[in-house]
Amino acid sequence: MKKFFAELIGTFILVFVGTGTVVFGNGVEGVGHLGIALAFGLSIVAAAYSIGAVSGAHLNPAVSIAMFVNKRLDAKDLGTYIVAQVVGAILASATVLFLASNAGLDTSSLGENGFSIVNAAGAFIFETIASFIFILVIVTVTSATKGNGKIAGLVIGLTLTLMILVGLNVTGLSVNPARSLAPAIFVGGQALSQVWVFILAPIIGGVLAALVGKNLIGTD
Amino acid sequence: MKKFFAELIGTFILVFVGTGTVVFGNGVEGVGHLGIALAFGLSIVAAAYSIGAVSGAHLNPAVSIAMFVNKRLDAKDLGTYIVAQVVGAILASATVLFLASNAGLDTSSLGENGFSIVNAAGAFIFETIASFIFILVIVTVTSATKGNGKIAGLVIGLTLTLMILVGLNVTGLSVNPARSLAPAIFVGGQALSQVWVFILAPIIGGVLAALVGKNLIGTD
Amino acid sequence: MKKFFAELIGTFILVFVGTGTVVFGNGVEGVGHLGIALAFGLSIVAAAYSIGAVSGAHLNPAVSIAMFVNKRLDAKDLGTYIVAQVVGAILASATVLFLASNAGLDTSSLGENGFSIVNAAGAFIFETIASFIFILVIVTVTSATKGNGKIAGLVIGLTLTLMILVGLNVTGLSVNPARSLAPAIFVGGQALSQVWVFILAPIIGGVLAALVGKNLIGTD
Amino acid sequence: MKKFFAELIGTFILVFVGTGTVVFGNGVEGVGHLGIALAFGLSIVAAAYSIGAVSGAHLNPAVSIAMFVNKRLDAKDLGTYIVAQVVGAILASATVLFLASNAGLDTSSLGENGFSIVNAAGAFIFETIASFIFILVIVTVTSATKGNGKIAGLVIGLTLTLMILVGLNVTGLSVNPARSLAPAIFVGGQALSQVWVFILAPIIGGVLAALVGKNLIGTD
Repeated sequence: MKKFFAELIGTFILVFVGTGTVVFGNGVEGVGHLGIALAFGLSIVAAAYSIGAVSGAHLNPAVSIAMFVNKRLDAKDLGTYIVAQVVGAILASATVLFLASNAGLDTSSLGENGFSIVNAAGAFIFETIASFIFILVIVTVTSATKGNGKIAGLVIGLTLTLMILVGLNVTGLSVNPARSLAPAIFVGGQALSQVWVFILAPIIGGVLAALVGKNLIGTD
Repeated sequence: MKKFFAELIGTFILVFVGTGTVVFGNGVEGVGHLGIALAFGLSIVAAAYSIGAVSGAHLNPAVSIAMFVNKRLDAKDLGTYIVAQVVGAILASATVLFLASNAGLDTSSLGENGFSIVNAAGAFIFETIASFIFILVIVTVTSATKGNGKIAGLVIGLTLTLMILVGLNVTGLSVNPARSLAPAIFVGGQALSQVWVFILAPIIGGVLAALVGKNLIGTD
Repeated sequence: MKKFFAELIGTFILVFVGTGTVVFGNGVEGVGHLGIALAFGLSIVAAAYSIGAVSGAHLNPAVSIAMFVNKRLDAKDLGTYIVAQVVGAILASATVLFLASNAGLDTSSLGENGFSIVNAAGAFIFETIASFIFILVIVTVTSATKGNGKIAGLVIGLTLTLMILVGLNVTGLSVNPARSLAPAIFVGGQALSQVWVFILAPIIGGVLAALVGKNLIGTD
Repeated sequence: MKKFFAELIGTFILVFVGTGTVVFGNGVEGVGHLGIALAFGLSIVAAAYSIGAVSGAHLNPAVSIAMFVNKRLDAKDLGTYIVAQVVGAILASATVLFLASNAGLDTSSLGENGFSIVNAAGAFIFETIASFIFILVIVTVTSATKGNGKIAGLVIGLTLTLMILVGLNVTGLSVNPARSLAPAIFVGGQALSQVWVFILAPIIGGVLAALVGKNLIGTD
């Protein structure tokens, strides 16, 4: 039960601060591409070095599934983690919506993911590659024998910053089904009709990362 | 007595460099949203890795109260720390005012906190959530058994940067009563009439973080 | 064989994310000078803390040659590493080209290196100095007795960010023959006719760094 | 003799990359306030994690004098360090001048320090405070019993970034006599007539930091 609340709080931090920075920071014109990239990355740092002590701070169903594939998370915890992540993300998007309404901001956009310059195939391929890289770093840097202990949270956060630098204009960069689902529920429309890409592609990228991590790198 | 001067110098660094960057850097139009966020965050790094060796570098009455709630600071030190933090912050704002006057800059604004797009309720809720996240990271990362030793100062600094990324446009992001009180004293007006939010909300967020840290995460 | 795939994946990450950020992020006008500098630097962090556990994450023929000069890589591995790096970089540029086409972006530029404000001599000298500094950090920070273990990947990544800050407007900053060759193959023209500078200068700078590292610093 | 070359190379890195980023990056309008701040900060990271293994990477006469005051550097090494720092800085400014000429850039400015919005007293006070903070971090974080070992170079570099965030518009932020003297020699005029501030104030701030470090923090 502690793990449930830890993942819920951690994913709340990720989605509240990450998408909140887009909404309250006036997006790329305001806080800027790099500001958004750092907000998402550093929200992982904040979660990893707080509730990570309880649950490991997956914050992301694709990460939990990758850990399950590599037998580093059992089936019961997998379910607990995913439910907690989705609930935490939805609470975060609801809080962003509440505060944005209070501030009189346009609430038709809540930091959701989506694609317009690439088609669905391009978006799917991009998110799969990005998720593969992101989760390959995660499974390695948290590995018992190949990992980097105390700095793992910093490395993972900076890697998410990196992926947003390359992907913000392509798909808004998800690599995380919970992070995409929550704002899509409140925004609806295209965000909701495209959300399948941001659920499936991160899971596929994550499973590939789990397999490459185990067989090529020897993560454990 | 060493702790008194350590907290005084540390809070001077935080407020002098943080609010000084806003004033001398020409704010969001000049040094930029991210520049301001990094200045506050890195000022914690500078204080943590210098006077932190003496006092732990709380730099913030809400942090000291959270530590007191979790019996990691005794009542006598709590008083010493808060007085030192307030004095250090006031000296910093006075120095910024002196140098800004010397430079012929507009001194009607000294990097104070305030809210205009949200109402007081929105500001209060936002500052409480932000302070909860910020201080949850602090109580965990400095914990004897759950903490991260040498990199704690970096993690705390980057978490303050993170909170300013999401909150600069909402409240100027305080999470710290001393940091808000000092410029408000010199600027007066709305900054002073709104300062109660930046005194109360960080303390409430900090106490919540102390309780969640102790009971969910097991910080000590 | 594991080292081959590790270097291939690692150099793919570097070139895909680095040059991809230039292409998808709309260059200096979009993601900005600092965003590009951080993308390349953090791509080294991502590679170092994933496939670095297998191959050391050279990602760069000039680095592998410097390691060979200092007898920290044998001749057979040197060949394996360089082939893997070039293949990984070419796959990355092909993927960027595919996705940029899908997105309808201008594909006449793929994040290639080149010089126009300086002449070939200026570019050669600049790339040699930059490669010397970059690879001097690498041979030291990964040294068995002079090195810094777990944070080496962060330091190396931040040093690449640094070199791009100073050199982006001079040569696009290469310091890496594989990173320059791959986009030049697809872009052709001036990128290809100038690529010899970005192959030779990093190797010369790297050999100088290897010698200074061994004789002045005592790297091993 | 190794220490001489180490400090020379390290100070070359600091001044070449730091002032070079201003010159080649088109200053605040180009690479930006934050880009310049990170370039100087990360140049310390690069120097600390390479030649720092030999000499400790002072790169700054004011740092060496502070170490001498605290008996952490003997008189003979103090002379060696300062000469090496000044020579390395002059070589760096000469190289920037050569490459800027090759690039056809305006060479009337080479990243020199100076003040115009504040008067000499304001500049002197500002540089003294900034040098005190910067060198207080250095003497602590490199201290045998109070220090932070492997991450010291990162902390020092980020602290220089911090000081440039607050001070770039005030004095160009020096805190380092060698860094100011070298471009002033080539630029002359006001840069040279004001350089006494950037020689004296950092030394005074550094001596104060040494005394506070020893007596308040207990650095050794």
